[in-house]
Amino acid sequence: MARIVMKFGGTSMAGTERIRRVARIVQRQQAAGHEVAVVVSAMAGETDRLVNFCREANALYDPAEYDVVVASGEQVTSGLLAMHLQALGCKARSWLGWQVPIHTDGAHAKARIQEIDSDRLIASMRSGEIAVIPGFQGLTENNRVTTLGRGGSDTSAVAVAAAVEADRCDIYTDVDGVYTTDPRIVAKARKLSHVTYEEMLELASVGSKVLQTRSVSLAMKEGVRVQVLSSFIDDDAPAADTLPGTMIVSDEELEELEMERQLITGIAADKNEAKVTLTRVPDKPGIVATIFGPLAAASINVDMIIQNISKDKGETDVTFTLPRADLARGLAMLEARKDDIGFNRLISDSKVSKISVVGVGMRSHAGVAAMMFKALADRGINILAITTSEIKVSVLIDEDETELAVRILHTAYGLDAADEAA
Amino acid sequence: MARIVMKFGGTSMAGTERIRRVARIVQRQQAAGHEVAVVVSAMAGETDRLVNFCREANALYDPAEYDVVVASGEQVTSGLLAMHLQALGCKARSWLGWQVPIHTDGAHAKARIQEIDSDRLIASMRSGEIAVIPGFQGLTENNRVTTLGRGGSDTSAVAVAAAVEADRCDIYTDVDGVYTTDPRIVAKARKLSHVTYEEMLELASVGSKVLQTRSVSLAMKEGVRVQVLSSFIDDDAPAADTLPGTMIVSDEELEELEMERQLITGIAADKNEAKVTLTRVPDKPGIVATIFGPLAAASINVDMIIQNISKDKGETDVTFTLPRADLARGLAMLEARKDDIGFNRLISDSKVSKISVVGVGMRSHAGVAAMMFKALADRGINILAITTSEIKVSVLIDEDETELAVRILHTAYGLDAADEAA
Repeated sequence: MARIVMKFGGTSMAGTERIRRVARIVQRQQAAGHEVAVVVSAMAGETDRLVNFCREANALYDPAEYDVVVASGEQVTSGLLAMHLQALGCKARSWLGWQVPIHTDGAHAKARIQEIDSDRLIASMRSGEIAVIPGFQGLTENNRVTTLGRGGSDTSAVAVAAAVEADRCDIYTDVDGVYTTDPRIVAKARKLSHVTYEEMLELASVGSKVLQTRSVSLAMKEGVRVQVLSSFIDDDAPAADTLPGTMIVSDEELEELEMERQLITGIAADKNEAKVTLTRVPDKPGIVATIFGPLAAASINVDMIIQNISKDKGETDVTFTLPRADLARGLAMLEARKDDIGFNRLISDSKVSKISVVGVGMRSHAGVAAMMFKALADRGINILAITTSEIKVSVLIDEDETELAVRILHTAYGLDAADEAA
Repeated sequence: MARIVMKFGGTSMAGTERIRRVARIVQRQQAAGHEVAVVVSAMAGETDRLVNFCREANALYDPAEYDVVVASGEQVTSGLLAMHLQALGCKARSWLGWQVPIHTDGAHAKARIQEIDSDRLIASMRSGEIAVIPGFQGLTENNRVTTLGRGGSDTSAVAVAAAVEADRCDIYTDVDGVYTTDPRIVAKARKLSHVTYEEMLELASVGSKVLQTRSVSLAMKEGVRVQVLSSFIDDDAPAADTLPGTMIVSDEELEELEMERQLITGIAADKNEAKVTLTRVPDKPGIVATIFGPLAAASINVDMIIQNISKDKGETDVTFTLPRADLARGLAMLEARKDDIGFNRLISDSKVSKISVVGVGMRSHAGVAAMMFKALADRGINILAITTSEIKVSVLIDEDETELAVRILHTAYGLDAADEAA
């Protein structure tokens, strides 16, 4: 017998028939002999509907009242799932964020979970009752409702799993696991049976939408075993223990499994960045701080930075990337400081794409980056910028070449599924 | 300066524009120098939508989970109204049922308010903050969400008004007050400036939908001054102090006002009853208990009862009325006990209407009932049954004659507005 936290997203909870299907999946998990808690999102579209009411009420809405309004979506689905489970003969009850309670800090609309009182939850689960918990919501020390920011239900699920010391946290979603790359781009993409927390973090941060980044960090920190799997499965499918999802594990656990490792685990493409170049910037000490200090102060996240070798007259070009959503704000900020910085021209390009290859395997293997550069060069794809981490190499390319680059690299690193498995 | 609780129903809260209008009404009340709390209903249609989800989940749904689901509707509107008020520059915050808290008993889906912790509410109001409270919801001693039953927001408003010792509880609705009768039936119906609690109770119990009966009982018990007025007023209308709504007051207060009293205050028609006759019932002691005991045990509310004078052979006919919604169940119950009771035929008629004349004036004036019977007889309207209370006379007539009877009585008791005021 294990203790399992299951999480279902908004698409899985959208309407009576889908909630009924979720209830049957949960029932099977309990029938397999496990103690079960379920964390749910609001019905797909509901949070958007509520956010829209808030925006109409007041463009500069009070985030504390925003939280009161939007937290209602998960309240509804948690009550309904408890009813559906009861209709199947299961013992079940909802536990709202303030009832558990799930304690958070006071940062409304983007709160962080601080502690979860798990005694009563555990007692309820031990008694055979399924605990249904609305994701995304919590309670401040001032007794006010908070929400965790969009996508926060993943984080709620991992936090609950940590609090009740669950053996596993199963994240049910509309894909059936983590793939070597987006299957819509590469038909030969393969589902991964395992991926490490760090790989998942790098993949999530460069555009793989399977899990919220924060939930992966939390799982890594708390040592929660997370499994990603599909909620759109047949009614006669087995309980999740034997379902072929993707398990997110630690490096050590992966080594114990002694699986044959690929050099690279996955390839991700991210079209959410834009490139900015400042030409003929004076090449003198402190100039970089003059450029990036104000951007950092405005919470604009600069990613890749290239400073060209100084040309004649002690001048240089500085190129960097930032989120596309922040481009206009960033350009205005730089333009306003043109005299301080002393650049000649400000050039921006939002038609760029960041391609990343990720894998813990590159820690012990040299030549991963070189292989990437050569494969792209062989097909004439120009690299605009490069950045690396311990387990990731990212390059910036023209957006039009995104799909081609992903396919080339998927083949080059030997990730293509054999035809019969494709 | 006064302390005022304002309540807005679902029609007034249906969507952004209407909530904005409510916010302006509330703002004007505060600008007039008052301390203000607002109790709100869910958007019109929202509670029905949520109830439907519950029914689809489980025909025999758990009322505790039903409460979790349906209480969300008022949670949303309370947060939104707080935002709209803030947009107008007012200080405002929402106080959910569990935050106040509004303590109730544990009868989920039909809970009764036991106590309201008012200290923090009063402190908030004193500081110039508008307290926005979702109606209809409360908290059990087990820390679970309850709701008060449909229409419960009126009761919430009166209970909050009692708890904060408000000078007045203003119930904003889609009519602009209490009328001598339904203006859709009688064009010359007049809006009443004052009505007593007991009159309002009698009017509410016989079909006037302006206020929930429970809220009137509570207001009478707690001595809360209640005013009924319209939320569909012009933007430049004055604050509610000077609006021509209907004030619900005690007998004593009405006497102090020394207003010229009509013999009758209002006339109501109720088409929710059905008539049942059992023929040739043995006229012996205990037979009435045999008929009505089982109906009472099944919570079927018998209203008017007529036992004809015993005819030959010691037999009699027994006629009574019950709610139309319970007719089928009541008939089945009587049919099953046919041998015990010993009746000959069971005759039912759901095409009946109960017409009631209500007024504290009849306490001190004889002849009210006689005037009613004569006015109806003069126009050939047959009376099927009669029941009276201290301040009410009700007759049962054919449903087709409802509107005619109301018009005749409205004129007979001198309630018609003068032409220029109509």
